Amino acid sequence: MDVFEQSLQLHESHHGKIAMQSKVPLKNHSDLSLAYTPGVAEPCRRIAANPQDLYRYTMKSNSVAVITDGSSVLGLGDIGAAAGLPVMEGKCLLFKEFANIDAFPVCIDTRDTEEFISVVKKITVPYGGINLEDIAAPRCFEIEERLKKELTIPVFHDDQHGTAIVALAALINALKVTGRTIGACKIAMSGAGAAGTSIAKLLMKHGAANGGQGHARKDAQGHGPNIILCDRHGTIFEGREDLAGNPAKMQLAQETNPERIKGSLADAMKGADVFIGVSSGNLVTPEMVKSMAPKAIVFAMANPEPEIMPDLAKAAGAAVVGTGRSDFPNQINNVLAFPGIFRGALDIRAKAITEEMCFAAALALSACVKEPSTEKIVPDIFDAGVTEAVADAVRKCESR
Amino acid sequence: MDVFEQSLQLHESHHGKIAMQSKVPLKNHSDLSLAYTPGVAEPCRRIAANPQDLYRYTMKSNSVAVITDGSSVLGLGDIGAAAGLPVMEGKCLLFKEFANIDAFPVCIDTRDTEEFISVVKKITVPYGGINLEDIAAPRCFEIEERLKKELTIPVFHDDQHGTAIVALAALINALKVTGRTIGACKIAMSGAGAAGTSIAKLLMKHGAANGGQGHARKDAQGHGPNIILCDRHGTIFEGREDLAGNPAKMQLAQETNPERIKGSLADAMKGADVFIGVSSGNLVTPEMVKSMAPKAIVFAMANPEPEIMPDLAKAAGAAVVGTGRSDFPNQINNVLAFPGIFRGALDIRAKAITEEMCFAAALALSACVKEPSTEKIVPDIFDAGVTEAVADAVRKCESR
Repeated sequence: MDVFEQSLQLHESHHGKIAMQSKVPLKNHSDLSLAYTPGVAEPCRRIAANPQDLYRYTMKSNSVAVITDGSSVLGLGDIGAAAGLPVMEGKCLLFKEFANIDAFPVCIDTRDTEEFISVVKKITVPYGGINLEDIAAPRCFEIEERLKKELTIPVFHDDQHGTAIVALAALINALKVTGRTIGACKIAMSGAGAAGTSIAKLLMKHGAANGGQGHARKDAQGHGPNIILCDRHGTIFEGREDLAGNPAKMQLAQETNPERIKGSLADAMKGADVFIGVSSGNLVTPEMVKSMAPKAIVFAMANPEPEIMPDLAKAAGAAVVGTGRSDFPNQINNVLAFPGIFRGALDIRAKAITEEMCFAAALALSACVKEPSTEKIVPDIFDAGVTEAVADAVRKCESR
Repeated sequence: MDVFEQSLQLHESHHGKIAMQSKVPLKNHSDLSLAYTPGVAEPCRRIAANPQDLYRYTMKSNSVAVITDGSSVLGLGDIGAAAGLPVMEGKCLLFKEFANIDAFPVCIDTRDTEEFISVVKKITVPYGGINLEDIAAPRCFEIEERLKKELTIPVFHDDQHGTAIVALAALINALKVTGRTIGACKIAMSGAGAAGTSIAKLLMKHGAANGGQGHARKDAQGHGPNIILCDRHGTIFEGREDLAGNPAKMQLAQETNPERIKGSLADAMKGADVFIGVSSGNLVTPEMVKSMAPKAIVFAMANPEPEIMPDLAKAAGAAVVGTGRSDFPNQINNVLAFPGIFRGALDIRAKAITEEMCFAAALALSACVKEPSTEKIVPDIFDAGVTEAVADAVRKCESR
């Protein structure tokens, strides 16, 4: 029985994966009179008088909503809000297991950006944070931006920033292992949606923060990460005509690909030091890896099928290979980041998860691996202390 | 320390009352690959192909959303969606404890009926049923009616129907204890909102179903429950001018108060056999109870303060007294009904909770008390088998 059949059985036999758990006893009338009527009137009155008391008397201080529209689920694409529920339940499990956060799935059945934003804004009461999940680009950018502006609890689109944090952490260690600096790297990326865009932005920030190498094309010395992103139509470059309707990609075109390389992903990968894939399975051939620089770094993070299988990439000369999957070494998976990110943010009751927090989280995560090697550039999620290290980095940011 | 102080402490020390619980193990990479990626892709694909598979592979089959706008919370009134959260969490506890249903609070921060309906419709994916809670009348009527029409999962406004079911169950036994039939009773009611309206309707249905006595004013023999409802402006009668903007009350005016009694609650209670209060505390004086018929039945169900305290009502001559509170005998509380109602409805995957189910639930609930007495007209929620008896009655309805 393969992993899919086993997974079906698991889901069916438990009727899903999450349940509601009582935190207080309810065994007699005395319990009832405290947890429910008449006693419950008092916390209600306190909150009515002071809304901040929600954090004191309700689930809010430890709760996160995992919210999707099901428009870009795993590697499955646009399968709808209903079909996304098993992933949301799974995400809630991870929040609980790795950060002891109570997370709840919210599947919003609309493709209208304004309606989605409006629904989210109306239902935030029980939640201390919002994890946006599996929402297609470019809609996800506007949704996140607007919600961040209009809400006072942290809003975090994990497919963007969680992925970016872990990718940067992995890259920091992969650069160490292969003896490179980010400013000297040519980085080819496949996928310019939510994850790709956010990774590119965080890498540029890392370049900037790392010894003044600056943003690509913006530094007087010409240093900074040289990133070339590809979408399904090929490389993204300034002046590509079909980008007109997509402000996010137009911005990427301005900030990346300083040489304005035109062509396919294969063209982008020629001579590249690093490949980062957040697109879909089997897009990269061994020949494309062979065309990269010596000791190439390959992060083939598409789920469930990576852009190239690790054994093929290694046989083609890659020195370090990571994927998004748990059944290979170097799992570059969001689960390393988002539990700690939210744990930290909830603990300090942050109003937002800032770029600074994301960057600090990536550094903390890379530092969890004391001696990086080709087979271990990121910690394993089951390693002790990973979530706590990330949470600690986030908590420190706010108090600076 | 009084019950309110104790309740505050309970809420603060646990940070609210509910948490999320994992139903599947997550201790190693093999667990991860089944509960999350890559295995989770398969249940997603199944649901995308057949939406009914939500019931098979997700939490939906055992989940209920407890949804409020906080506009009419307990006896506290319009305290807002946020301040209603402790009650919603409490309700979720009761679902779990008494029916093993996983219930989740949804606090919708709007007073716009259309917006409320629209938000609910967009977020139903994870839930197999919807319990509407603490929504003010008359908005609650339209909200429930519309959602029932536009959704295919059961929608149940507990303040209306849960209260009505338990009140009818209590009345059936109180009538037995005092040797009356419902058709011969004059029933004065205080409160013509969600609960009052629904109680009046269910009593009329009970009158109709009970030996052909028919609806008040509609029976040729003049039989049927003689109900006089009062709101804060006094008795509701056909022709009362200020009812014009309230269709629900206009309908009540047509169907109740056949003698068109005008005046205050005190006027309505003169000579009444039964008083049912779902309004607010301390509205009924001992003199008003004394003015009732001998062996009067008094249900003073306002929360947290009843319309009259039980000792005062008894001293004034009431034969049977019930309240909504757990610290007196005869607790006429919704918790006797809603867990079993939803347990039954989820078990048979009912598309709606019908009037027939509510009536059957009331009969089942009254039958739980083998030998009714003045101190025991309804079962105690901690009595064995109560939820199961109600659930069984509901399950049988659907299969008829």
